[in-house]
Amino acid sequence: MAPPGNDKNQLFLGLFIHSVKLGELQYLHDTAVCVDKSGKIIAVEKQCDQKKAEVTLYPKLGWKVDDVTVTIAKDGQFFFPGFIDTHIHAPQYPNVGIFGKSTLLDWLNTYTFPMEASLSSLPKARRVYTRCIQRTIAHGTTTAAYYATIHVPSTNLLADLCLSLGQRAFVGRVCMDNLGPKYYLDESPSKSLAATRATIDHIRSIDADFDLISPILTPRFAPSCSVDAMTQLGALHQETGLPIQTHIAENVDELKLVRDMFPDSKNYADVYDRFGLLGKRTILAHAIYLSEEEADLVAHRGSKVSHCPCSNSALTSGVAPVRWLLDKGIGVGLGTDVSGGYSPSVLDAARQAALVSNHLAMPPRTGKKQIDSSADTEANTSFKDDRELVRLSVEEALHLATRGGAEVVGLGEKIGGFEVGKEWDAQLIGLGLVPEEDDSTELKQDDQDQDQDTGNVDIFGWERWEDRVAKWVFNGDDRNVKKVWVRGRLVHERR
Amino acid sequence: MAPPGNDKNQLFLGLFIHSVKLGELQYLHDTAVCVDKSGKIIAVEKQCDQKKAEVTLYPKLGWKVDDVTVTIAKDGQFFFPGFIDTHIHAPQYPNVGIFGKSTLLDWLNTYTFPMEASLSSLPKARRVYTRCIQRTIAHGTTTAAYYATIHVPSTNLLADLCLSLGQRAFVGRVCMDNLGPKYYLDESPSKSLAATRATIDHIRSIDADFDLISPILTPRFAPSCSVDAMTQLGALHQETGLPIQTHIAENVDELKLVRDMFPDSKNYADVYDRFGLLGKRTILAHAIYLSEEEADLVAHRGSKVSHCPCSNSALTSGVAPVRWLLDKGIGVGLGTDVSGGYSPSVLDAARQAALVSNHLAMPPRTGKKQIDSSADTEANTSFKDDRELVRLSVEEALHLATRGGAEVVGLGEKIGGFEVGKEWDAQLIGLGLVPEEDDSTELKQDDQDQDQDTGNVDIFGWERWEDRVAKWVFNGDDRNVKKVWVRGRLVHERR
Repeated sequence: MAPPGNDKNQLFLGLFIHSVKLGELQYLHDTAVCVDKSGKIIAVEKQCDQKKAEVTLYPKLGWKVDDVTVTIAKDGQFFFPGFIDTHIHAPQYPNVGIFGKSTLLDWLNTYTFPMEASLSSLPKARRVYTRCIQRTIAHGTTTAAYYATIHVPSTNLLADLCLSLGQRAFVGRVCMDNLGPKYYLDESPSKSLAATRATIDHIRSIDADFDLISPILTPRFAPSCSVDAMTQLGALHQETGLPIQTHIAENVDELKLVRDMFPDSKNYADVYDRFGLLGKRTILAHAIYLSEEEADLVAHRGSKVSHCPCSNSALTSGVAPVRWLLDKGIGVGLGTDVSGGYSPSVLDAARQAALVSNHLAMPPRTGKKQIDSSADTEANTSFKDDRELVRLSVEEALHLATRGGAEVVGLGEKIGGFEVGKEWDAQLIGLGLVPEEDDSTELKQDDQDQDQDTGNVDIFGWERWEDRVAKWVFNGDDRNVKKVWVRGRLVHERR
Repeated sequence: MAPPGNDKNQLFLGLFIHSVKLGELQYLHDTAVCVDKSGKIIAVEKQCDQKKAEVTLYPKLGWKVDDVTVTIAKDGQFFFPGFIDTHIHAPQYPNVGIFGKSTLLDWLNTYTFPMEASLSSLPKARRVYTRCIQRTIAHGTTTAAYYATIHVPSTNLLADLCLSLGQRAFVGRVCMDNLGPKYYLDESPSKSLAATRATIDHIRSIDADFDLISPILTPRFAPSCSVDAMTQLGALHQETGLPIQTHIAENVDELKLVRDMFPDSKNYADVYDRFGLLGKRTILAHAIYLSEEEADLVAHRGSKVSHCPCSNSALTSGVAPVRWLLDKGIGVGLGTDVSGGYSPSVLDAARQAALVSNHLAMPPRTGKKQIDSSADTEANTSFKDDRELVRLSVEEALHLATRGGAEVVGLGEKIGGFEVGKEWDAQLIGLGLVPEEDDSTELKQDDQDQDQDTGNVDIFGWERWEDRVAKWVFNGDDRNVKKVWVRGRLVHERR
């Protein structure tokens, strides 16, 4: 079995925007992109309209007009690569926004473990997972790296639902045989591994080549895995080459816990490394408090980082030093980290990534109170010179959300941009246009066309495209996501 | 002239949620609220349905059934006090989200002054202001403290539009006769004051008692006002008792500028104080870097603070120490600070107020890199004890957005909660309900009823009301704002 292809070839026309490298968006105006029935981009032609495509492109591609579906980005709309969520816990979706004043370790016990445990119920899992997938797709997420729960049947169900709803996904049964609550814990290392193998087998049965859905080895985080379990997971990775996802250095109490539990390890990263869990295909979520030595190790191993700004602020974890990680040569993508993160939207994550990076550039503070301004203005002169270095621009945040994320999940060759050879994982974005003249001073209940709620981005018409994109990042939402495709298949449409 | 009243009395039924004090939301289930034709709440009755209201309340109030409009919060909906935006620049609305990597002083010159100057055009001002007011109302803002521009006609137009669209507003012509660009500057202190008086006269002509629209004296910020201008504004305040709004201690470069420009003043707050501009009715935006001495002065004078978290993060200004200000006894409300702030929504400001307060509780960092975790975990032990003190809860953020904001704009007796004697400035909030059973594994384009896009808040049904409110704060948007009233008048309805 394999995910279905498309009945027809597809021609996409209009403005395409994608990140070509960190900090640089490319604007391809009046461009044609041809996608074959397998969902692959086979031509990108600038200065090309439908007529020209039919005359010059179709013959080269061996296409016939009636075998092609045409989708045009209208004036003010643009195609953008689908978002890649490099870290999301699907079973925690019902808890988005619910975290009170907890921090990581008490948050797990108060909110997270009870919710995850309850998804042993397949009807509940179906309801939650269906909603989570639909929501993330509606926000433009074409690929997600999911943590499921410890349960085999509902993990398999998550994979089934991703496949049928058409979202590209990594689906990981959570391995945790240590330190969790009695009601939610793998019984033993061997049972943990057997359960994980069962989910791998299931995914192979529904998507033999892992074209759309791939298993991913998922040790929850070091403290919740026994040495035996991690040893066996390392061996399983060695055997299968499957990707790995886990958490690292998210919270200072967690750091202490890891130090206490693994006294023989040099540091947190070393815990994973000695079990063979730190490799090219490892996704490390958070990475807020890596030491220089750890970051160098992560870079050396080629492991990647999922930056989760919404979660890091919500749980008071910290601010990940993204620029520093990037400068080390570590690949970084964005994660919503639902439900430590309060939003299922990668656009929200991009927005917060930019905002929290600014927090790294703010004048230092001391304890409860703010800095003494007179003293600090001088003291900060050299610090301020570094501002431009740590702050992430809109363009950089969008890079992490797409091309950066593609590399983090090991699909850098397949998705993340609009090049020939890549697969068509894309979203059509539409922004709202403010009417030219509005001479009414009378009360209006709602001036919006109710059949077409265009969302909160107001374009007046004079904005440069760079500014429109910034407006989208800061006020956009799912209403701006008009259509979503994965591997050429239309998986979402907003009418 | 006065703003119009309502034709009928109004009965509101269902769940009412409001903040009764900092950190405490009250949930009034199955409650009836009676609002008379002037828009005033004249009865609040718990355990009361329509039948009971007709039998027991109407006779007491002298109401007849056919003289009453009834609005019922359906299951899952609730009434909430209208939001109060204590700091917003209406002319900057087209720039929301556009700030690049600027900080305050270059942001003013690059983005802000050119946009404000262009609103000398009345057609452009009409288009921008209409949209801004409609948008903010749609987000539930029933009261806004607006900065306009330096232009008299378009400032007057802003007042006219607020009146006709039904939003309660403070409208301030911006006074700036110093240090601005030549193309956008009051010509002299006396002309600045004359222009301000002209807008006050205009507002008096459209709303004699300032029932809905009030002028507000608006020295932009100390560096942009000459000593003469501030002296005369202080005298005008003394003469009229009108409220004042300005900026304070937003950015470290600004602090230095103020120190250089006003060497005789003890500090930034003292600059305003010596001109008589620091009083009970003064709204100080930002207040990130007040010294202990300044905060004590602000508290002593009874001046208030508008906390603008979206803007403070976007422009890398800093994090205002809200708990510290509150503990000083200073009244604090929320400001969107469009367009330093990227969002016209006070709900967004509440969300960010909670998030950035967490940043004050994060382990200290040093320069470019994060803390050394091993060293810091110990060092932070005492610091961590203060965490609960600086972090703002959802309930506290909502307090600032409503009752706190009411006190900041001097309307604590009139709005901000649901008590007898207050005016009916309210919003009806509806959250989305996830269907109970969803047994389809087929592709769905969009499972939402397209005529009723209920937004991003997914309620599964098992959530406590406190958790539903948290979900609303973290994922809600204007789609959840079903209706908005100001002084009893329906000013927005989402169908």
